[in-house]
Amino acid sequence: MKRLAIVGSTGSIGQNTLRVVEHLSDRFRVFALAANSAVDRLAGQTAAFHPAVVAITDSARVDEFVGHCRARGISIPEVVTGEGGLRQIASAAEVDIMVSAAVGAAGLPPTYSAVAAGKVVALANKEAMVVAGELLRKTAQKSGAKIIPIDSEHSAVDQCLRSGRKEEVRRLILTASGGPFRETPAEQFGTISPEEALKHPTWQMGKRITVDSATLMNKGLEVIEARWLFDIPPEKIDIMVHPQSIVHSMVEFVDGSIVAQLGTADMRQPIQYALTYPDRLPSPVPQLNWATVPRLDFIAPDSKKFPCISLAYRAIEMSGTAPAVLNAADEIAVELFLQRKIVFSEIPNLIASTLEAHQTKLADSLESVTAADSWARQRARWEGNSRATC
Amino acid sequence: MKRLAIVGSTGSIGQNTLRVVEHLSDRFRVFALAANSAVDRLAGQTAAFHPAVVAITDSARVDEFVGHCRARGISIPEVVTGEGGLRQIASAAEVDIMVSAAVGAAGLPPTYSAVAAGKVVALANKEAMVVAGELLRKTAQKSGAKIIPIDSEHSAVDQCLRSGRKEEVRRLILTASGGPFRETPAEQFGTISPEEALKHPTWQMGKRITVDSATLMNKGLEVIEARWLFDIPPEKIDIMVHPQSIVHSMVEFVDGSIVAQLGTADMRQPIQYALTYPDRLPSPVPQLNWATVPRLDFIAPDSKKFPCISLAYRAIEMSGTAPAVLNAADEIAVELFLQRKIVFSEIPNLIASTLEAHQTKLADSLESVTAADSWARQRARWEGNSRATC
Repeated sequence: MKRLAIVGSTGSIGQNTLRVVEHLSDRFRVFALAANSAVDRLAGQTAAFHPAVVAITDSARVDEFVGHCRARGISIPEVVTGEGGLRQIASAAEVDIMVSAAVGAAGLPPTYSAVAAGKVVALANKEAMVVAGELLRKTAQKSGAKIIPIDSEHSAVDQCLRSGRKEEVRRLILTASGGPFRETPAEQFGTISPEEALKHPTWQMGKRITVDSATLMNKGLEVIEARWLFDIPPEKIDIMVHPQSIVHSMVEFVDGSIVAQLGTADMRQPIQYALTYPDRLPSPVPQLNWATVPRLDFIAPDSKKFPCISLAYRAIEMSGTAPAVLNAADEIAVELFLQRKIVFSEIPNLIASTLEAHQTKLADSLESVTAADSWARQRARWEGNSRATC
Repeated sequence: MKRLAIVGSTGSIGQNTLRVVEHLSDRFRVFALAANSAVDRLAGQTAAFHPAVVAITDSARVDEFVGHCRARGISIPEVVTGEGGLRQIASAAEVDIMVSAAVGAAGLPPTYSAVAAGKVVALANKEAMVVAGELLRKTAQKSGAKIIPIDSEHSAVDQCLRSGRKEEVRRLILTASGGPFRETPAEQFGTISPEEALKHPTWQMGKRITVDSATLMNKGLEVIEARWLFDIPPEKIDIMVHPQSIVHSMVEFVDGSIVAQLGTADMRQPIQYALTYPDRLPSPVPQLNWATVPRLDFIAPDSKKFPCISLAYRAIEMSGTAPAVLNAADEIAVELFLQRKIVFSEIPNLIASTLEAHQTKLADSLESVTAADSWARQRARWEGNSRATC
């Protein structure tokens, strides 16, 4: 029986993780749940999964959580709060697997704690690996922690890599849906509305990641994530646009053989794979219905139209704190776009100028990446707002 | 340095094997070559690869071989002949890897000898596994022999299976080009000429296997081969028509994940994989050019139009010597079709009636499968000729 701490349990990945736990209730028990502020849903999850501890990032919501528990007539678990609370449950001795499913930079401290404590970390929070990939990798080497990706692309790569050794990899091929503007002429990128950018063809996700899919920054961040997860240099990581999102990614080996992973777009598959790794267990995920998927396309991405891809490679090249800056600047740029303060085509410009203004430092501690993150947010917000008032 | 015996060195797979050996000359040395009757080419290979022994099945060709060697001014290796000669080189103490690349039933005795001697067997001769799969599997378990497929579909399955355990397989999906008559209406199958049947869209192969690709019997035989190679029951083996022949086959696991192997249609890839297994080494095989492969289709096969598929499953169900009968009857049916004695649409009928007339026996020795094979050839030839004279 493996005991889980699920950080970000009320989000989309968190909820799907609990569905997997429910399906495999003879294998997994929930030791801790953590949410930012959705305390009503957290109380419902507490009623269903009986965690010993819950972490609520926003301490002002604790009373509300307790009220929801009382209303449901359930006993109240131990409650911890803030970043300290998240770190505490992520590294608790009772935890075997930490599911890192918080959204954004808030996921980094608990992920780092779990890695430092030598846990199995099922990683959905891609920011952690983008912002502090080198640090997490080195820390895991020391602690013996095993980081298993939940992101469908990286889960695919992980599954494909089993067909050979790391030294035998010629390149990773991350597939991208291409987003909703794959066929939109670049000249129209200035007039794309937030509503249009929030329509993703395949996956239902949070707002920032959906806009990131539209700019292809999502794929750029995944290149950085892959670079550290698999210890593969960026020149061996390619992107291929695959609008059907059936092939989740591929690995090409030095002998010319390509191994691909495919399936239905259901996050329970990679989540379960991460939890049961290296085993595979029966899953209620619907089988891929080939009759409804009659053809698959693969096209090289248009990096002129989607400069965010090149920006991600540029950040890896700059190394150190540059990926943290890329990620933070992107988060602010997306926020300003959703607030209609900058237009869609300005997102990459804002990221680029923040990146170029950055003095790269070693990313050798949480403090150094957090400082770079804060600097980039401030810088990007300042520049974005001054663009907005022009 | 691994020493090879290549049985069938002058055929297409044999020649490609020697190209791989040439490329990896620091890893492999040719101990023995064997050919049926193409002694001129065999002498050329002897000049280039210096085998210690050559086997010539047709003993009447030995003098001719010696003459070709003298003409080239090379020293003459030890020459062995007949089935005994093939078995001798396949099981020689000096051999690490036996490449089983003879065409047809002649490949079985040396393959069996190599398996019984505990060699690594790189298997391209699919008849051996079709005719005597159960026997070869059991013999390998006793001797410690390792059978690694060269067939592109089975090599693909082998590569995909590394992503999980055998017990975790939901199904194997063997891909089929669909042959040249995929879109030909069934009513026209009576008028298909041998010339039309010998045009294969993707691979350059021998005559029988090309016609087998047109009837889809090739895929039926591959189902039988897969059943024994991977010890997977037939109800877990499916066929999918994929006209582009880019995806060479797939494995679906119980968790809903599908792992596929793809690449250019170049037999040097699976040959090299079999020789270097479990390692992967750089290969001169051209990289898959995605720009020229813009889309991939997958369609369920039309088993009404191509009854050979069901016949193969029927033979597995009958078990014992039935697959040997299926294979032998097919070989005769194809021969009679190429001689214009029966029409294309009669191929499956002739196989079906031979199969149904067969009294299945245990396939527990080479003798029992050989006897079934001989019976089926005689029976199919007799029936085919009587159909022809009708």
